[in-house]
Amino acid sequence: MPHFEQSLFSQTLFEGRVIRVTLDKVRLENGRTSTREVVHHHGGAGIIALNEKDEIYLVRQYRYALDKELIEIPAGKLESGEDPLKAAQRELSEEAGLHASSWADLGSFIPTCGYCSEVIYLYVARNLSPIGQHLDEDEFLSLFTLPLKQAYEMVLSGEITDGKTIAAVLKVYALRKEGKLL
Amino acid sequence: MPHFEQSLFSQTLFEGRVIRVTLDKVRLENGRTSTREVVHHHGGAGIIALNEKDEIYLVRQYRYALDKELIEIPAGKLESGEDPLKAAQRELSEEAGLHASSWADLGSFIPTCGYCSEVIYLYVARNLSPIGQHLDEDEFLSLFTLPLKQAYEMVLSGEITDGKTIAAVLKVYALRKEGKLL
Repeated sequence: MPHFEQSLFSQTLFEGRVIRVTLDKVRLENGRTSTREVVHHHGGAGIIALNEKDEIYLVRQYRYALDKELIEIPAGKLESGEDPLKAAQRELSEEAGLHASSWADLGSFIPTCGYCSEVIYLYVARNLSPIGQHLDEDEFLSLFTLPLKQAYEMVLSGEITDGKTIAAVLKVYALRKEGKLL
Repeated sequence: MPHFEQSLFSQTLFEGRVIRVTLDKVRLENGRTSTREVVHHHGGAGIIALNEKDEIYLVRQYRYALDKELIEIPAGKLESGEDPLKAAQRELSEEAGLHASSWADLGSFIPTCGYCSEVIYLYVARNLSPIGQHLDEDEFLSLFTLPLKQAYEMVLSGEITDGKTIAAVLKVYALRKEGKLL
């Protein structure tokens, strides 16, 4: 039997540039009511870009919410209603300075389903050509390459902790092994 | 050179049961100021529980923020300052009705670093004994088992989209292959 909750009322508490927060009243399966705190987000796109040396492009970036630098695949948020592949192409261009002529869908990644609507669409980008990084004026990150194999080992050792990066690296590595990604 | 942002001011906009939302003013590397929307969360614990038949325990649960059911490993949020392993043991007991006498650390998973402080601590639980599921009165989920191999295939096919579940399944599968998880 499918599980379900019925939305009864939704109150917007905050509307920012990145997120909108609502407090909702819902009817549960047992007929009782409860509240749900919801972070609404337009979603994101993350890209694992593989060059002909079997290296991937990573960025090291300070993340204020965690007060630390993380190692991540290039990624960014969608505009409302934007095609995720378009966003992926834009972010790869801005953050990594790369154009890719080959794109493959790597599936959806739902970061934190308990209270947040965000979905990150993951892609593999190949056949890369450099076009020059062009960050926003207030965006600071360090771009570098690593052999895919080394990124895989850094995920397994716990050195890479960013969720979308864990998923993208392990998925690409596994699909390769299974002969499902040419 | 490490990247950094200095917090200048933090205003709490909402304090709920699950999240606290702040709007912060920060000083950037270039000396300019900007704002950061931050979702504060105490963190979570997620458990991949393996039985002697090499099956894992999964839950199917409605997620209001996404308006759909997802397939997930058992997981739950930490109380403020709670030991993540304690929380993992509690959630495995509540959601899956299992006690495990063997626990291994599977590393940290940061769901969405751009605006949220949440860290999910992942564990592998083995040597399982049934003690009976005891859900909260207002908690509804369906528990089932799947061969680890089948869960792995469902991750690669895109059928499993929950981030922590993707990470836990692929990490356990890879660590096994590498002989790093006995």
